[in-house]
Amino acid sequence: MDAFYRSIEALTSSYGAYGLINHAGGPNLPSQEAVADILRDIDALLFPGFREEESADEGSLANVTAERVHRTARKLMRETEKSLSFSCRNGRFACEGAGCRDLAARIVKEFFAELPQIRRILSLDVAAAFKGDPAAKSVEEVVVAYPGLEAIAVHRIAHFFWSKDLPLIPRMMSEIVHGRTGIDIHPGATIGESFFIDHGTGVVVGETTLIGRNVKIYQGVTLGALSVRKSEADNKRHPTIEDDVTIYAGATILGGETTIGRGSVIGGNVWVTESVPPDTLVYVKSGDQELKPREKRG
Amino acid sequence: MDAFYRSIEALTSSYGAYGLINHAGGPNLPSQEAVADILRDIDALLFPGFREEESADEGSLANVTAERVHRTARKLMRETEKSLSFSCRNGRFACEGAGCRDLAARIVKEFFAELPQIRRILSLDVAAAFKGDPAAKSVEEVVVAYPGLEAIAVHRIAHFFWSKDLPLIPRMMSEIVHGRTGIDIHPGATIGESFFIDHGTGVVVGETTLIGRNVKIYQGVTLGALSVRKSEADNKRHPTIEDDVTIYAGATILGGETTIGRGSVIGGNVWVTESVPPDTLVYVKSGDQELKPREKRG
Amino acid sequence: MDAFYRSIEALTSSYGAYGLINHAGGPNLPSQEAVADILRDIDALLFPGFREEESADEGSLANVTAERVHRTARKLMRETEKSLSFSCRNGRFACEGAGCRDLAARIVKEFFAELPQIRRILSLDVAAAFKGDPAAKSVEEVVVAYPGLEAIAVHRIAHFFWSKDLPLIPRMMSEIVHGRTGIDIHPGATIGESFFIDHGTGVVVGETTLIGRNVKIYQGVTLGALSVRKSEADNKRHPTIEDDVTIYAGATILGGETTIGRGSVIGGNVWVTESVPPDTLVYVKSGDQELKPREKRG
Amino acid sequence: MDAFYRSIEALTSSYGAYGLINHAGGPNLPSQEAVADILRDIDALLFPGFREEESADEGSLANVTAERVHRTARKLMRETEKSLSFSCRNGRFACEGAGCRDLAARIVKEFFAELPQIRRILSLDVAAAFKGDPAAKSVEEVVVAYPGLEAIAVHRIAHFFWSKDLPLIPRMMSEIVHGRTGIDIHPGATIGESFFIDHGTGVVVGETTLIGRNVKIYQGVTLGALSVRKSEADNKRHPTIEDDVTIYAGATILGGETTIGRGSVIGGNVWVTESVPPDTLVYVKSGDQELKPREKRG
Amino acid sequence: MDAFYRSIEALTSSYGAYGLINHAGGPNLPSQEAVADILRDIDALLFPGFREEESADEGSLANVTAERVHRTARKLMRETEKSLSFSCRNGRFACEGAGCRDLAARIVKEFFAELPQIRRILSLDVAAAFKGDPAAKSVEEVVVAYPGLEAIAVHRIAHFFWSKDLPLIPRMMSEIVHGRTGIDIHPGATIGESFFIDHGTGVVVGETTLIGRNVKIYQGVTLGALSVRKSEADNKRHPTIEDDVTIYAGATILGGETTIGRGSVIGGNVWVTESVPPDTLVYVKSGDQELKPREKRG
Amino acid sequence: MDAFYRSIEALTSSYGAYGLINHAGGPNLPSQEAVADILRDIDALLFPGFREEESADEGSLANVTAERVHRTARKLMRETEKSLSFSCRNGRFACEGAGCRDLAARIVKEFFAELPQIRRILSLDVAAAFKGDPAAKSVEEVVVAYPGLEAIAVHRIAHFFWSKDLPLIPRMMSEIVHGRTGIDIHPGATIGESFFIDHGTGVVVGETTLIGRNVKIYQGVTLGALSVRKSEADNKRHPTIEDDVTIYAGATILGGETTIGRGSVIGGNVWVTESVPPDTLVYVKSGDQELKPREKRG
Repeated sequence: MDAFYRSIEALTSSYGAYGLINHAGGPNLPSQEAVADILRDIDALLFPGFREEESADEGSLANVTAERVHRTARKLMRETEKSLSFSCRNGRFACEGAGCRDLAARIVKEFFAELPQIRRILSLDVAAAFKGDPAAKSVEEVVVAYPGLEAIAVHRIAHFFWSKDLPLIPRMMSEIVHGRTGIDIHPGATIGESFFIDHGTGVVVGETTLIGRNVKIYQGVTLGALSVRKSEADNKRHPTIEDDVTIYAGATILGGETTIGRGSVIGGNVWVTESVPPDTLVYVKSGDQELKPREKRG
Repeated sequence: MDAFYRSIEALTSSYGAYGLINHAGGPNLPSQEAVADILRDIDALLFPGFREEESADEGSLANVTAERVHRTARKLMRETEKSLSFSCRNGRFACEGAGCRDLAARIVKEFFAELPQIRRILSLDVAAAFKGDPAAKSVEEVVVAYPGLEAIAVHRIAHFFWSKDLPLIPRMMSEIVHGRTGIDIHPGATIGESFFIDHGTGVVVGETTLIGRNVKIYQGVTLGALSVRKSEADNKRHPTIEDDVTIYAGATILGGETTIGRGSVIGGNVWVTESVPPDTLVYVKSGDQELKPREKRG
Repeated sequence: MDAFYRSIEALTSSYGAYGLINHAGGPNLPSQEAVADILRDIDALLFPGFREEESADEGSLANVTAERVHRTARKLMRETEKSLSFSCRNGRFACEGAGCRDLAARIVKEFFAELPQIRRILSLDVAAAFKGDPAAKSVEEVVVAYPGLEAIAVHRIAHFFWSKDLPLIPRMMSEIVHGRTGIDIHPGATIGESFFIDHGTGVVVGETTLIGRNVKIYQGVTLGALSVRKSEADNKRHPTIEDDVTIYAGATILGGETTIGRGSVIGGNVWVTESVPPDTLVYVKSGDQELKPREKRG
Repeated sequence: MDAFYRSIEALTSSYGAYGLINHAGGPNLPSQEAVADILRDIDALLFPGFREEESADEGSLANVTAERVHRTARKLMRETEKSLSFSCRNGRFACEGAGCRDLAARIVKEFFAELPQIRRILSLDVAAAFKGDPAAKSVEEVVVAYPGLEAIAVHRIAHFFWSKDLPLIPRMMSEIVHGRTGIDIHPGATIGESFFIDHGTGVVVGETTLIGRNVKIYQGVTLGALSVRKSEADNKRHPTIEDDVTIYAGATILGGETTIGRGSVIGGNVWVTESVPPDTLVYVKSGDQELKPREKRG
Repeated sequence: MDAFYRSIEALTSSYGAYGLINHAGGPNLPSQEAVADILRDIDALLFPGFREEESADEGSLANVTAERVHRTARKLMRETEKSLSFSCRNGRFACEGAGCRDLAARIVKEFFAELPQIRRILSLDVAAAFKGDPAAKSVEEVVVAYPGLEAIAVHRIAHFFWSKDLPLIPRMMSEIVHGRTGIDIHPGATIGESFFIDHGTGVVVGETTLIGRNVKIYQGVTLGALSVRKSEADNKRHPTIEDDVTIYAGATILGGETTIGRGSVIGGNVWVTESVPPDTLVYVKSGDQELKPREKRG
Repeated sequence: MDAFYRSIEALTSSYGAYGLINHAGGPNLPSQEAVADILRDIDALLFPGFREEESADEGSLANVTAERVHRTARKLMRETEKSLSFSCRNGRFACEGAGCRDLAARIVKEFFAELPQIRRILSLDVAAAFKGDPAAKSVEEVVVAYPGLEAIAVHRIAHFFWSKDLPLIPRMMSEIVHGRTGIDIHPGATIGESFFIDHGTGVVVGETTLIGRNVKIYQGVTLGALSVRKSEADNKRHPTIEDDVTIYAGATILGGETTIGRGSVIGGNVWVTESVPPDTLVYVKSGDQELKPREKRG
């Protein structure tokens, strides 16, 4: 006798009864596995010679690169088309005329055309990380062992697709790297070059955040919203961080109208909900802690 | 000559000498790999149509579901039996009469009977997340890209096994999702429906926590214990959060007698060790920070 | 027509143009995949009987151990040699005489000779965790489900290689476990026995930190630097934590001259930049928070 | 410069130019990989307890069997539907009314209903092999190490699908086992119970062959056609072998009207193109070979 | 104690003592695994749309083809270079000037330029098979289920590399398909278009065989040498088969001066060591077999 | 509704009804997959430097060899123990005293002690193949591309285990290589050094065959039995082939008292059931074939 017969019946029939978590019979969604795989492929294109088990000499690099681009393009087109179809069906996006497949092909083509430019900016991010962390012994160490670099690299990719109004995939990308690094940057955030996140666990950067050049942030920093009303979803809800700002660990900066002026330094654990002028140092006042002899416990 | 001959001898003989980290010759423990695999299988049963590379039409859904249930049941029985045997040997649990295998079969059978109910509650969690985050563009996005949903889904599974006094497996489950999301919910915690964690990194929810309905918490929130004495392990050591409470990022709420009253809001970085009445707003007083012009460094 | 022809050309030629993120044609670097694999192998050597799907009886344990040691040694030699070659080429390290391969073989041999000692210390760490957490039901649970144990185990391995001046690999190891646990311990940190990290997400322990015996820390604790100038990279920049200290969640302790005296307790969210005498309790003063009735939102 | 640019262009355009070996853009064909996988699954259903790494006790056998049936059914439905669609498009078969998917579901359902009967016949084949080969030490050896049993097992499966007029899949099955065993039985052949092929390499059994019960054949036996004209494809072109016949190695029996009468024995290397009466022994006459002293070569 | 300590020592030291089967420390040889993998890749390029799990529409076919060519080229270059290096070291081949890598690149480039021509010839082979076998129901069946087609496809590839004097790889290719089909065609054999092998098990075609157009052979046919003296290795040792010849199962044709004239038919099991004029039928005389009543065994 | 519910019930209940092909609930049998895997491992130990993707320098060869031996020993012990347990239960073998595990350990230990000797003999087989085939261009080609070498290598391994009265595994080994090469050598056959099989498809060598040194055989040769009565299973049923004999393709030699004398040559397709004196040439007389002009078919 099949011990699970009744449970299977109940489960299968529940697949018709509750709307929110059922997608059976709906259009295919992009696969998390596939998106993670695509990110690995793009990573190898961004950092040639860093991820391979074997050194690719220059002679074969052209061939290897062509293969990688074509392979990644094939996978990317497939997932991009699924995302667009999903969006069309929900009426949030119209592929019009030539259809989702053609639009997917165009977006993917534009992405690869953009890759050299993304590499240029990432090389500045690597330089900023090496310069900004006394513990970094080589630029190669930054590329192979800094979660902050991984996070910003994936963000620059995800942001490209976000800028094309592609649904789901950019957020899946940011969630994959959030899972690996503890750094949660919404793909909508706009971030300038030479950006460095140290350690990074617990960092949150909201959807409408604007970050200038040469900004450095530490673990646990939140650039968040004051309002969490769904009706204000289209407003700028997250802060603006101007060039050359440093934000130390655990600081919280909230609000769409909050601007941290150029060259300012926000100290650890500071809480900011109003704008800070340029070249300002904000820090927690001392004197809010007490020391006393510790009672020994038995 | 074998360069490692001596090290192998030393290592092998150390396997007899220190008790705590040796398990050679002991009963099999549940495998982390297997438990992670089981969670992936259950996830696919909970969210049909979301994880597949290909769309399963309704015609084949019944067959696919039956296969999944049987496969997952086989794996789950195996690991459950190992957990029970471990517990029996340690005298912490008695399978009695029919033995560990029969008890494992009964628990697994009950789990699949419970699954439709778990799905019902998770659909409320998804709705709460969509409603609670202005950045969420669709309910599908919540299912494919919200770590908070992953954490609560795994918790609801782990909590079922915890409620059956099954050792090890519930904690292994919660640790797997902690590793992926940075959200650490002890499987003993009791959590009501429509629960939403945003961003989530750094969240800690202790073993004896009680959480009502429609509660929303942000990254870095700790619901912890004041006492960490082993002798108090059986007491309620973690707080109670009543319905409709919101707790912002970085807040810390400690103690088994601490209750946050219905409808209250706990602000970011707030530190609470005593109960808060219903419909209360708790926030960090301003004025504890200083601004001054930044000295330029050479 | 090849839609990607131009992008491939641009990408391939960019591989010659920007220095920082190109490694094509350079010496092989250790592979992240391979280092992760090595850590899994060492983990199985450290915790015999915990990770296997099947119980290894004592009769076959010697054979299984010999196989594991040889396999791990092979992989480790390969990656170690790559690291040393990288270092030699950059002039930061000189393998001299017999060359990188011989030095790699010597380091790997020493590592396996050290393993029984590392196991001895880890068994004390397990005991400390079991004793320190009321929620821990068995020592086996600590081994299979505590991220803090995983973090300290990897740290003790990474620190060994760090002490041999091996570049890249120690940092890759610490980053791998940081990604999995949210605990970021620099391999340079010196940590005494019976060390316990609970929950762990967001913990940062800097390169020159010194930690004594029986120290316990919670999630979100930072042991960091005050100065982040590259020119001071060789100084002691991170604090000293003496024996028997406990540091609660979210506390921040900064500076190379900051010492937390033996037996002291640092409370949650406390901010410390100066030394604390032995047997002292440091905590956030109450009175810095306000409660008021919550305005209901429409 | 892409060294393969021109070859890719030529190849891609050749994909439009030659009809016979192009299938791009056509309906999906059953995948060889998938069919091989299905055969492995069915094999495990036919021979429970023989192929598993671990012994399945009776308690879990029902669950394991249910899982296997559902998994195999899923795969089989998919490939069967592809085969039927291919056939429909070519006008060689009409799925009519409910379409290819429904017909696929019906065939697959009938196949699983037939499996117990196929098992019954295979158990007689195993008994015949054990009885017929003095070298066989146990019936278990027959199941794990006799290619003749593998061939007849796959044939009985393939023949079922052939009898349902399913195109491609039966031939793919027979070719897979031909590749593994060197035994080439056309799925159209009708073969009675207690059939045994020893050694088997080089055996060929044609499409319209009829074989009775208790027949035994050896390696290199051909049961073939005299005519190879396409226009006679629908005729019976291959011989009839009645019950209790033995055919030794290398014998060739040709022609649709050739019948080997009940109980006859065909000797090694014999060539038969006309019927042989019952209980007859056919053998090569001696005297057609010469012996002479061998000349030694330098 | 390590039970295998002595055996390992003996084995390792034997690796220095016997020349023929040691290759440790020698140049890398092409890997059987890699060559098999390359054959699979080329197969997918030759038969687009036949091997894929999913149908590739024409829009993506160009991209998929480019990816396949680049991937296959990468692998092929690697193995080809190893083969050339092996040959150079043994003095049997000189890569001269630019070295083995450049020569490998040139050979691989020429191979892909030749692929469309190979496809053209294979389409004629498929047509010949379909026409020649009454049991073939469709040309698609020939492509997915005829071992003779697999053998001739691999032969045409292997023969290309043979014609470039590449060592090892062509023979490894012919052996791989020999293992799968039982058809052993030496890569040196020259075979015209519209070639068909039916069933195929046991077919042997020697190194210096010449085969014209429209030739059809059956299982067990040998086209072999009379002399097996190593000193005659450079002579033509195997027969010539002119256009439109059919050779039935088990026939043996030997000798470098033996020619089967155009349009002749060689019957089953016939033994030929001298030339046969055009349009001749050769067959085994009847009368060499005896029938007698079979004695019943108890 | 579960379409397969009834079939699953019928199948599961049939698992109790027919004896021969049921093994559910019985002792584990050696796994075909595992035995194939073991053969791959032993092959790599026999032919160091031939199978690796990367060249193992002498420095690391000792380590790699130790690892391989231990890994292979672990797998071999497991499967050997299963075979012995199976045998014990059937009463065909008694492990006595220390039990099956201890006996398995002893057999495996003896096997590795024998390996260097097996390598010595195989190096003679390689030399014989290179000398015996004019088409062989190098000894390396023999090792990487001659199925005859693969067959004899596996036979020498299987024969070792046969000589220890181990059931099932030797036959599984011989069947695996039979499937790959078409060469079927029973593990009981005794074969001298410098043995060479060319092409090999269709070769059958029976259980009690005795073969001397420097013997060479071609494809399709059968060394078989005259009697196939089960009651004579313990007799010598297969021929004796003395030193320096050559047997050409398709020859059949039958009978336990048939001896081919030293230095004799058996021609192609010859049928031998009586002994042949030393230095004799046996060949098919000419004149048994007819030629006539071929009738053209319309």
